[in-house]
Amino acid sequence: MAVKARITVYPRPEILDPQGKAITGALGRLGFGQVTDVRAGKSFEIELSKKGRNVEKVLAQMCEQLLANTLIEDYSVELLDGGAKK
Amino acid sequence: MAVKARITVYPRPEILDPQGKAITGALGRLGFGQVTDVRAGKSFEIELSKKGRNVEKVLAQMCEQLLANTLIEDYSVELLDGGAKK
Repeated sequence: MAVKARITVYPRPEILDPQGKAITGALGRLGFGQVTDVRAGKSFEIELSKKGRNVEKVLAQMCEQLLANTLIEDYSVELLDGGAKK
Repeated sequence: MAVKARITVYPRPEILDPQGKAITGALGRLGFGQVTDVRAGKSFEIELSKKGRNVEKVLAQMCEQLLANTLIEDYSVELLDGGAKK
């Protein structure tokens, strides 16, 4: 059974996020003064050909090996067809 | 009242996504042969100082004006403290 997942990767909270800061400033200049903070990250929608029992573990391995730099980034894994898990 | 939202921006389905294709190939070479497709997008976590009645409309305006290139990208807006809406 095919399964779809979303992986979100953000800079760790203690890491500076210059892209987010730039967007915060740009939104302010565009008139969106109510914006106090922006974090800029990446999102990946992944389709797998079958749903194994360990699909969340497999997705976490993809993050560790390729999608996230865990020194400076946190990731979260979310199964899109029901069920959500870190 | 402060409010937090997540904006996700993906290339439109009819647009080529070379970054996603490259990741699909790289995951395959790393042994994740069950991956059939990857779409690579952006994610923004936005904090607003107050929750107006039109917060979703305001967030959509931010996407139209700055965060997404609507010629080639789709966006979705999600309020993080309860409630979700396109």
